[in-house]
Amino acid sequence: MGLSQTCEIKLKNKFQRGNRNLITDIPGVRVGQVTLQNAEKAIHTGVTVILPHGGNLFKENVPAGVSIINGFGKSAGLIQVQELETIETPIVMTNTFGVGTALNALTKYMLEENEDIGVHTGTVNCLVTECNDGMLNDIRGMHLKEEHVREAIQNADDTFEEGGVGAGTGMVCMGLKGGIGSASRVVPLDGNDYTIGAIVLSNFGVAGNLRIGGMQLSAPEQKAEKEERGSIIIVIGTNIPANGHQLARIAKRAAASLGRVGSYLGNGSGDIAIAFSNAQPIPHYSETKIISRRQLHDGALDLMFEATTEVVEEAIISSLYHAETTTGIRGKTVFSLKEVMR
Amino acid sequence: MGLSQTCEIKLKNKFQRGNRNLITDIPGVRVGQVTLQNAEKAIHTGVTVILPHGGNLFKENVPAGVSIINGFGKSAGLIQVQELETIETPIVMTNTFGVGTALNALTKYMLEENEDIGVHTGTVNCLVTECNDGMLNDIRGMHLKEEHVREAIQNADDTFEEGGVGAGTGMVCMGLKGGIGSASRVVPLDGNDYTIGAIVLSNFGVAGNLRIGGMQLSAPEQKAEKEERGSIIIVIGTNIPANGHQLARIAKRAAASLGRVGSYLGNGSGDIAIAFSNAQPIPHYSETKIISRRQLHDGALDLMFEATTEVVEEAIISSLYHAETTTGIRGKTVFSLKEVMR
Amino acid sequence: MGLSQTCEIKLKNKFQRGNRNLITDIPGVRVGQVTLQNAEKAIHTGVTVILPHGGNLFKENVPAGVSIINGFGKSAGLIQVQELETIETPIVMTNTFGVGTALNALTKYMLEENEDIGVHTGTVNCLVTECNDGMLNDIRGMHLKEEHVREAIQNADDTFEEGGVGAGTGMVCMGLKGGIGSASRVVPLDGNDYTIGAIVLSNFGVAGNLRIGGMQLSAPEQKAEKEERGSIIIVIGTNIPANGHQLARIAKRAAASLGRVGSYLGNGSGDIAIAFSNAQPIPHYSETKIISRRQLHDGALDLMFEATTEVVEEAIISSLYHAETTTGIRGKTVFSLKEVMR
Amino acid sequence: MGLSQTCEIKLKNKFQRGNRNLITDIPGVRVGQVTLQNAEKAIHTGVTVILPHGGNLFKENVPAGVSIINGFGKSAGLIQVQELETIETPIVMTNTFGVGTALNALTKYMLEENEDIGVHTGTVNCLVTECNDGMLNDIRGMHLKEEHVREAIQNADDTFEEGGVGAGTGMVCMGLKGGIGSASRVVPLDGNDYTIGAIVLSNFGVAGNLRIGGMQLSAPEQKAEKEERGSIIIVIGTNIPANGHQLARIAKRAAASLGRVGSYLGNGSGDIAIAFSNAQPIPHYSETKIISRRQLHDGALDLMFEATTEVVEEAIISSLYHAETTTGIRGKTVFSLKEVMR
Repeated sequence: MGLSQTCEIKLKNKFQRGNRNLITDIPGVRVGQVTLQNAEKAIHTGVTVILPHGGNLFKENVPAGVSIINGFGKSAGLIQVQELETIETPIVMTNTFGVGTALNALTKYMLEENEDIGVHTGTVNCLVTECNDGMLNDIRGMHLKEEHVREAIQNADDTFEEGGVGAGTGMVCMGLKGGIGSASRVVPLDGNDYTIGAIVLSNFGVAGNLRIGGMQLSAPEQKAEKEERGSIIIVIGTNIPANGHQLARIAKRAAASLGRVGSYLGNGSGDIAIAFSNAQPIPHYSETKIISRRQLHDGALDLMFEATTEVVEEAIISSLYHAETTTGIRGKTVFSLKEVMR
Repeated sequence: MGLSQTCEIKLKNKFQRGNRNLITDIPGVRVGQVTLQNAEKAIHTGVTVILPHGGNLFKENVPAGVSIINGFGKSAGLIQVQELETIETPIVMTNTFGVGTALNALTKYMLEENEDIGVHTGTVNCLVTECNDGMLNDIRGMHLKEEHVREAIQNADDTFEEGGVGAGTGMVCMGLKGGIGSASRVVPLDGNDYTIGAIVLSNFGVAGNLRIGGMQLSAPEQKAEKEERGSIIIVIGTNIPANGHQLARIAKRAAASLGRVGSYLGNGSGDIAIAFSNAQPIPHYSETKIISRRQLHDGALDLMFEATTEVVEEAIISSLYHAETTTGIRGKTVFSLKEVMR
Repeated sequence: MGLSQTCEIKLKNKFQRGNRNLITDIPGVRVGQVTLQNAEKAIHTGVTVILPHGGNLFKENVPAGVSIINGFGKSAGLIQVQELETIETPIVMTNTFGVGTALNALTKYMLEENEDIGVHTGTVNCLVTECNDGMLNDIRGMHLKEEHVREAIQNADDTFEEGGVGAGTGMVCMGLKGGIGSASRVVPLDGNDYTIGAIVLSNFGVAGNLRIGGMQLSAPEQKAEKEERGSIIIVIGTNIPANGHQLARIAKRAAASLGRVGSYLGNGSGDIAIAFSNAQPIPHYSETKIISRRQLHDGALDLMFEATTEVVEEAIISSLYHAETTTGIRGKTVFSLKEVMR
Repeated sequence: MGLSQTCEIKLKNKFQRGNRNLITDIPGVRVGQVTLQNAEKAIHTGVTVILPHGGNLFKENVPAGVSIINGFGKSAGLIQVQELETIETPIVMTNTFGVGTALNALTKYMLEENEDIGVHTGTVNCLVTECNDGMLNDIRGMHLKEEHVREAIQNADDTFEEGGVGAGTGMVCMGLKGGIGSASRVVPLDGNDYTIGAIVLSNFGVAGNLRIGGMQLSAPEQKAEKEERGSIIIVIGTNIPANGHQLARIAKRAAASLGRVGSYLGNGSGDIAIAFSNAQPIPHYSETKIISRRQLHDGALDLMFEATTEVVEEAIISSLYHAETTTGIRGKTVFSLKEVMR
């Protein structure tokens, strides 16, 4: 909310913001987080979970698309989303060395919820994404436990914190403290109001390259990290009916947003965008072999493309805006945008 | 030159500009153009040709990569560049309905230069790119002739005009007069100075979205086109030794530059980036089956990635900066950036 | 027809063949061809055109997918089919150096049929595919003229010849005379019978590698060409409702068929598969922004995948079966399968 | 060895087999396996590990390429191999629900071996592949433990068992008992002998579709599984110098081999091919920014393509040939090829 006020001046927006200006403005979408902080042990990490709808995701898949903007990343589950263009589990964000544990936790959760998996039907494609929080967090300590993932799923709600929380606890973006950011837009179509929203885990970029609303920000050099250790996970959601291929194209637009905030899509950055629509889930089991689907006519896609670049740009800025200065492993202090701009 | 001065204030650049601030600052690269203008017949089109080196391109291929940022385009030859990661002909830019004619012209030129094609060896992959100049040009008239392509190849030189010339004659970008733009940067590596340059054919975007150096430009609405009829062709060249895969990744960075100038990668836009290196051509015929290659270590790729986003951003702005207000078919007038900013 | 009898023993088929065992068994699909033969001038080439339905293809697009099995090819129009997953013109097959001329012919045909192109709407994506017939044909002579393409469109019908006709006139496959081949299968779904068909332009492979129904064929070595000069164009059609992504996945299965007949997907081979469904065209102009579509449930895709590998395998064998021994440029004789098997 | 004799008649081979006819015929390549069998608890699973060379893989990466033939799979690490075209850890094969545990085990192993990971340099991309062995194995029980992965790495050697061992313990292929299979070929280049080898984890296909050396095998229907529950992991290695893009193209040829043995690349099958070359590793840290590389000239790629289709085809048949009839969970018996052919 604070950001909306700040950014109303800075970030020109064509589309109206949603009520909370969060991805959870899309009906049915919930987000849960667990933050792990222990200054003494240099633990600054966590987990963030996005639930695309409130039902059984394995039985009712959401159409989805992926854009591997830069594939220097260790996320699990993307290959199958690209092939089938569906998501069938919650989407987990965590740190790089937490992927194995999150995968185990999510697999066990899905097995409990679905007795048919591995018996009457195939297996399940768990979607776990990551960034490297090793600049602030003792990442080699592998501090994420399975119960944290479980807890994040259970506490998922339609409001959530932004900044250095959940998976964003130890993240660094543009040399400043990054983390979780979100935004939303209202898109009118055929007389109805739809929502498009984004949540990001920001951990990319080089100090001094940040642009806000196009203005290049000259952060005091001594206060910002110079090293690029990359990665951003971008999850875009909507209740506009769109098929997987359209959603993959929507996800691809996130690259333009990254350019707008000053990224050059660094070599060591795992820049991954995932887009889903919860307008009309696809049943895992279908009685008929031919099914009926609603989808956007391609002639109207520009509305979604423009809203996407706008909402992702703002979600990134919002992750910076909400973060606080943090001191982590090896005594490293990463300053917040607010502190630098003072 | 004019642009350098203007943009020194507006576009922050980390890398030093090349001598001419043109893609032809790369030793060996030449550009040729033919402009077709006839106000009475509403002919506002042309052809621009890029020669990656001065030798026989079919016998000495340049490593190359492609990024199909948005594939709403009718360019010919891209599939094979993606598969083999080499370019073996000059690169032609023209209007959409000129592709067939340019293909015929380029094929005949290559057959003349190489008697082995289609006899002792396979065929040749002619690379012809395009944008739709139908807003100003009588595109249905198909006014490009084979001799124009031939002439552009023959007049190729290391200086060339920017703005509404050659293939850029009828192009419209961000609601303003677009066309041909170029820029270059010097990249120091292992104690030597290398060059990276770009040339663009700009024809994309929506009025009012333009950002220069991050600042959003509020062009007087009545003076700018609102309709998006898309497309940009971006050719990036370098004399840094890079392999095809690295060049494809370099080409991909152009999407960030498009975001920076305000594009949302529109649905109807053929946004195509091609990158080549003329450092060490690959021979078509080789006596040994195992050959030796120099290439950049991936650890240094960020230098190229950052220089690429910078040079492509400036090339686009340069295409606008050099263009003049033009009146075309159906009496349509498209204003220049200079006129709008006055 | 002859092939069905021969192959009933050789090629095990799970699915019943269609009436004509041709792609035109799909209601609405038509094929037209023009054969150019002049022994004295070593002209052995032509053009084959596939019309996915009987209406205006630009106004009523067919969903489509592409698989670039090996991209050593010069086809035009594929990039946009990959991006939009639609086809909006007839599909042309011809020789490599005929692509420019075919593009011009098809563009003019589309402009005549659609006065809005380039005026009230964008341009048109002409789909022209090719193989290199230079082993038998004087390909450097560029003998295809625009009127041949026009004529092929006009004579399109629901029956057509296979073997060394149309675009297949000068093609060579597995060291034997190749060319045009086709086959079809009936696929039962939800109580209705649907059709899946294929037409190929076969010009790939190395003598001695041919497998028919799995049996490796040891053609008398002296009678078969040893040189690999590659390429096959595979067009798969169906009236099963399938979306573009499903059709791209269907097209991908053609690689398995190529393996079955003995191909190793040679480096110099442009192995391109295109799949379309004419079940429910997508309108170019839509009054509503959200539209309704029918499509196969992914759970039933295996039916299409298996039928596709079967029908493409048989279409390739059929192209060989119907071809006749041909003597072409430089006195080269390429023997037919029938002659070799005698 | 047994297979070589059997297949000498059945599988025509152009290239000479290596000494052991295993992927470990490539100097430096080792394979380690742990088999988990407990009939009472219906445990029929395990792990197989491939070490591309004998040194520190994180410090000395192997160039590599990936082909996602069908992406219905849960493998981890592929995205980064596609982006960087390098492998920096051992390659693990296991069952679908073992991926998280294998990821944790491999991460810990790599952290121990490399103190710089997560401190002075970035993280590490662990490569873990999988198939679903749920037809015979109690896959929901998640019986793979971290120590099994560690043990497999430690016992890696240049000979190894094929059939129902390691990750192949519970796998089913073409309705018959599948698992681990391997083969190798000698490829002469510029006067030297190089090796290309493959190891597969076979778990795909439908009963009755199997083709051996082209002959369709009519297994007694009652003895073979009809259900398709998919997937095959194919790892191709070589000591021929090849770059990542060439290796990706080599990996793509595995689709032809799958076609040859009767696969139609089923919807629910995770068909993944990975190819690496250990000829000239790429250092993680480099003192110079421009490095020297040897690679195959593309003109010689057909040798590798043909050898690849041959070696992958034989590795699959070998996995069937070496497997034994197995009874697993829910009393299900899957017969071996040997038993069916008796």
